[in-house]
Parts: sequence; C-alpha cells; structure tokens
Amino acid sequence: MSRFRFQRKLVQLEEAQQAVLHYINMQKTEDVALADCFGRRLAMTVTANHPVPHFRRSGVDGYALQASGTNGASADQEIKLDVTEMIPCGSIPSMQVGQGQAARIMTGAVVPDGADSVIMIEMTEVLPDHQVHIRKQMAVGDNITPIGEEVEPGDILMLPGRTIRSGEAAVLATFGFARVSVFRKPRVAIFSTGSELLEVDSPLAPGKIRNSNSYMLAAQVIEAGGEPVIMPVLPDDPAEVERALLQVLEQVDLVVTTGGVSVGDKDVLVDLFERWDGELLFNKIAMRPGSPTSVGYWRGKLLFALSGNPGASFVGFELLVRPYIKGIMGQTEKLHAETKAYLQTDYSKGSAYPRYVRGTLKMQDGKVYVNPAGKDKSSIMTSIKDADCLIYIPAGGKGAARDDLVRVLLLNEPICSL
Amino acid sequence: MSRFRFQRKLVQLEEAQQAVLHYINMQKTEDVALADCFGRRLAMTVTANHPVPHFRRSGVDGYALQASGTNGASADQEIKLDVTEMIPCGSIPSMQVGQGQAARIMTGAVVPDGADSVIMIEMTEVLPDHQVHIRKQMAVGDNITPIGEEVEPGDILMLPGRTIRSGEAAVLATFGFARVSVFRKPRVAIFSTGSELLEVDSPLAPGKIRNSNSYMLAAQVIEAGGEPVIMPVLPDDPAEVERALLQVLEQVDLVVTTGGVSVGDKDVLVDLFERWDGELLFNKIAMRPGSPTSVGYWRGKLLFALSGNPGASFVGFELLVRPYIKGIMGQTEKLHAETKAYLQTDYSKGSAYPRYVRGTLKMQDGKVYVNPAGKDKSSIMTSIKDADCLIYIPAGGKGAARDDLVRVLLLNEPICSL
Repeated sequence: MSRFRFQRKLVQLEEAQQAVLHYINMQKTEDVALADCFGRRLAMTVTANHPVPHFRRSGVDGYALQASGTNGASADQEIKLDVTEMIPCGSIPSMQVGQGQAARIMTGAVVPDGADSVIMIEMTEVLPDHQVHIRKQMAVGDNITPIGEEVEPGDILMLPGRTIRSGEAAVLATFGFARVSVFRKPRVAIFSTGSELLEVDSPLAPGKIRNSNSYMLAAQVIEAGGEPVIMPVLPDDPAEVERALLQVLEQVDLVVTTGGVSVGDKDVLVDLFERWDGELLFNKIAMRPGSPTSVGYWRGKLLFALSGNPGASFVGFELLVRPYIKGIMGQTEKLHAETKAYLQTDYSKGSAYPRYVRGTLKMQDGKVYVNPAGKDKSSIMTSIKDADCLIYIPAGGKGAARDDLVRVLLLNEPICSL
Repeated sequence: MSRFRFQRKLVQLEEAQQAVLHYINMQKTEDVALADCFGRRLAMTVTANHPVPHFRRSGVDGYALQASGTNGASADQEIKLDVTEMIPCGSIPSMQVGQGQAARIMTGAVVPDGADSVIMIEMTEVLPDHQVHIRKQMAVGDNITPIGEEVEPGDILMLPGRTIRSGEAAVLATFGFARVSVFRKPRVAIFSTGSELLEVDSPLAPGKIRNSNSYMLAAQVIEAGGEPVIMPVLPDDPAEVERALLQVLEQVDLVVTTGGVSVGDKDVLVDLFERWDGELLFNKIAMRPGSPTSVGYWRGKLLFALSGNPGASFVGFELLVRPYIKGIMGQTEKLHAETKAYLQTDYSKGSAYPRYVRGTLKMQDGKVYVNPAGKDKSSIMTSIKDADCLIYIPAGGKGAARDDLVRVLLLNEPICSL
C-alpha cells in the first residue's frame, strides 16, 4: 500500500471550490423554442426592445375622457357626455376625444388622443343616442398606464445563467423571443464503485447493498440543470477503471464517481490518481462528511471523485459539483446562498474539520430555525430527502448548542421536471 | 349586456379553494423506471422492506476485533493480534473473530461474528506473519452500525404525492424500486383570450401585445407537475369558444383560460358561462388581483377562467390551479405553505378585498424579511420572475407598514417530512 494514501494534501473547502471553479469551461449554447425552454438556463442577456406598455393603456373597462370635464360629477350630479366610438383591445382609436366627449374603452385598449383619464364603467350609465352619464370626478392620469411605466426600452431584464421559469417565460414572450438561447445541458457521467453494489432490481444478498448513489446523483445532476448518464459500477481492476473513464471522458462534460477514494486496499480511484497522466487538484478537504473527496483534471475535463457513503456523496456533489455546473452555465452566483438560522436542538458532535450537516429549515413568526435532518435517528441515507440546507458546524469545539445562530447553506433551487 | 355581469356571487378565497378541491378527481398512475421518475409525484407509500443496514456494518477501514482484548492499548503500549482474514465490501466473513484475533475489514463490509468493534487502520500497524499492532483501547460497538440502526423494516419512508428528488431517489434505489408508481402528469389545456394578442414571433403592432400568459402558465403547469398544452388564442365568437373548449375537454384533465371574465362586452368566458350546460362554482373572489376569477365544472372537468392581466393570471393559477393539481396527484398539503415575515417597506395600497402581493423573501441573521417584488416600479409582468411568495394584505385599512409581521404564502414547495 502506497504511503500516499495517508499523506494527503489537505485543503480547506473554500480552496477546493476555487480550484474547481478555476477550470470552468463554458457550455456551448443552443436555440430552443420558447415552449421547450422551461427549466433551462438562459445563455443571453435579455434587454427590453420596446417599452411596456408601448401605448397609453387603459387599466379598466369604461370611458376615456378629459378629466377637466368631470368637475363636480357625482352620483347625485351626473355629467352627460357624447360617446365617440368603442375601442376594443387590440384596435386603434379612430378619433380624438374632445370636450364633452368620451370613448367607450376596454381594459388593455389604447387610450385615444385627447383623453387623459378613464372612468370605470361601474361609475357610468349608458344613455340612448350614444350618450353616457358620468358619476365621478376624475383626475388626470386616472386608470391610464403611461408608455414605458413597467419597462423602458434598454432595461436589462435577465442575465445569462438564470433558470427559465414562469416569470422568465412571460418576459421572453412579451419581447418576442420565440426562440431562446440557452446553455446546453452538461452531460455528467456517474460511476459508483464497490463490489458490494447490487443493481436496483437485484434481490438483497448478504453483505451487499443496492446502488443508490448513482440514482441520487442523477437526480442531483438534473436539479442542477445537467443531464445524467448513469454508467455501470466501476470494476476493481485499475486498468479497466482507467479505460472506462478515458472512454467516457470523450463523451461527457464532466465525470462524477463515488467511493474508491478512501484508504482501503480496493480504492480504485486512489489507484487511478497514482498512475494517470492527469492533474490531481486535491485529494483531501477539511470537511465532514467527505474528507477524502478528490478532484482531478484529465484530458480537458474534471473528474469529481466523491466519497462513497450516501451522505458524503450528496454533500460533496452540492459543495463541489453543483457550483461547477452552475458556473459552466453562466451563473455568477455559483456557490450556495447562505443565511443564518437558530438551531433548535443541541448538535454535540464536534470535529477536527468543519461539518456540513444536512438540515431542514423552518420559518416561523418571522424567525428562521433549523434542525438536523432526521434528528431522531442518525440516518445516513433516508434523511437526505428531508434536507433543504447544510448546517455549518465550525471545526474544533463541541458542535453547536440549541438557540445558537448558525450558518446554513441553502440547497434549494426549484426543481424542473423537464 | 346582461346584468349578471355586475351581480356576481362573491366568495372568499378560502371558500373558492374548498369549492375547487371538492372536485378532485385523482390522476391515474403509471409505473416508470427509477431513472426516469425524477421530478414526478409518487403514487405509492414507500415502506422499508428490509432493515438498513441489513448486516452489522463497519464504519471504517481497519480491523474488527473484541474490545475486551484492547484494554490498556495505546501508542506506547501496542497489543499484538493475529489477523484471521481480509473482509472486503460485499463479501461474507468466513470465520469468527476470537480472543487475540482481528479481521482486516473495509468500510461498509460485514463485521464478522465474534467481533464487537472495529479499530481504524490509522491506529494500527501491519506486522509480518499475518499480525497487527493495535494502538488504541476500543469500546464495544465502536465503528459498528447495528442492523436496522438507520431504518427498521416496516418504517414508512415516503407518502404518495411526494415529489421525487435526489433523496427520494436514494430511498427508492435502496429498497429495490427499479420501477416506481407515479401519478400521470395531468394534461392542462391553456387558452388565452383577446383580439389584442399577437403570436410571440409576430412584430409588435399598434394597440397589440404578444401573448405572454400562455407561456407563463405553461411554465407554472410544469412547475406544478403537469403537462401544458398551449392552445390557440380563443376567438371572439361565443359559439366557437364553446366548440373549442368542448373539444379540448375530451383530451385533457383540466382547462385554464385567461382573460374574458371581466365586465367588458367581449368577455367570452362570461358569455360561455351564461349559455353553457356546466356548473359555475363561483365567478368572483374577494381578492386582488383577479377578483373576476371564475371556475366551472363541465363534462366532468374543471375549467379555471383566470383574470387576464399577467399578475392576476399568475396569482390565480397559484391560489386555485396549483392546489388542484397537487390534490389530483395525491398531496395532502394542497395549499401553499404559509409563514410570517417582516415587511421591509411600507405597502400603502389598501383594498376592499384581501391582496396577494407578489413578494421576495430574504432570510438574514435568523429573521425573515419580505419585499414586494419589483418595488421600485409597479411592474405587472416583469416582476413575476422575482417572486417567491405572495404577501397577504388584509382587506380594508391602508395596506401594511414597514416592520409589520405579515402573512406570506410560499410559492416554492418546502421540504415536508414524509
């Protein structure tokens, strides 16, 4: 056994993240139909190419008129006006509105020249012979949205990297983006290692467990905006491992493995890093779980070798792989958003390294609380589903105490089922 | 114009929601391969069919031994043991560990009978002739995960309606669900109304705007777990509207329209509700925006007629359509989760009806703050993308003041516990 396995270069998480982000290789972009781009990441800056509204828009159904002509109007003192025309949505007024006149107008329609306010239809009464009674005094501008009030031409509305959801879709449609430039989904090969791993459809066998990491990571890849490629479990033979990885590196944008990075005799990734022609960025991070997490740069691609237990794989993906995926799809905020929350229970596990404990946030009465996910049992795998944050427990000391205001990293970017 | 347009039956939002949820018609289910079910909603209860771990599992690489034989061991006082065998992950120990013996064991491997603790390899030294030096005193149970510590057989792990993400995928894989029963995605037909609407790829024309609601709603449908079917803009002719809707009702699970529910002359949905053979649940809700929102039950399907402006469409979908979609896919918590947050600015717009103002949450130093989305401009459409909650402003009064602790409805689904 090589002594290298014990003598690793320790980096802090922040260094590890910066090392990874140094290798950002932007994804190519593609144009996609608007109806097909939901959940994708924008690859362009969206700038307003016209004002919104682009005409003086009526905010109500009613009558467009001159406010000055309604002085003193009320339910008891109606003012009679001549109705010039009817202006539906989408049509253009055919005449000006002058003194003593009003134009029947629909919500969203163009306010005719001459008119400076719109009275709601409920404040009027239709009379015979194209006349109308006005029952309320109006002020200039009432119920009219001026040109450009919502958006002015040139306003920057969205930046690259933004995930396209409902509000983004509305903006793109409004400004005529029938096709949208988005980043191609990075293809991420996922390998698990370990001769103990069974296929999901295999019956349980003594000493063996089903491969859950590959599916968990595939879902994490999708949540991050990538396209997972679940590969067969890596064999024990180092030469075969090298061959399998080299082959897939040609076909994907990055590779994620789990397991095989520890100090055991069969840790195939450690073997690989000793024999390959790639560059090892680091092979130990000062964190729990997942301290043996290693990342290498090989043939122009990153290889993330995550620690094998489910919790460590999950956390390693979130802290290293997801920021990289966000980065290659143009996001400026690559790392998880952070906040602080009140810990609702003692967390007494200290550690020589900082811990990133899966947690569940709770907002109540204006305060933010957090609990370790699955606090009643020290569940490694089943509590992953209950985590929406990672609680940061500093190195040394004895963990954190109830009511401590602790740092938390937010995991949730909303999911998209596409 | 029918007087019905002005004399509507007003319901409170809570009544409207209950009326809609009364018509829940559960989606059929389908079996999907595990790798294809991410983002879908579970249609089954997932119960542990075996313990986790299902064998006494070593938590470290090292030596399995009897703790009692390590009394007094330290770096200065090593204890020598005979190594019986090597137990890799996934294999079965071939012999018991007795007094004076130890078995080399890998992380995740089966602890052999006789052994009651595992010492980390870093605390040992390999000797010639299958012997090992132990440098630490061990306690019974050290570095062994007992059978069933994480999960016991029969534990209920997940309930129907839950969205399958990474943690759920790990659970499903662990318990052998190669195929997963999920709810079929409800197909949702989306119609916009209005002769002012242009296709997204059309050049802007005077008085006209591009149809953004259909795309926004399509994205909302996807976010809720459904499958949108964007239909052509509804014509002005009431008979044609009826024909178009009847035809699509055969092919989808629900229909959402926007516009045409107000008091204007061309409000085609109002016309429809006056002439159809369906049941109108309500045609006015005490809320802003979107008070003319109407819902009908027709030929066994719900027709949600949302108000036409983008903000009202967005809010109407969230408050009425999304709960229904969640309901027909088995979620017990159908309405949005609520919390309270400190308003960071005065919101001085009062209203005779409760307001649901799109807002952006901010967590800082353990407190939850909220701001109206797009507060600097009264943007109707462009600020939808910045909203992650709806701020509830009670009816009457003068809005809400800075520092008020206000009710907010969370638009992003929080993690729930099963």
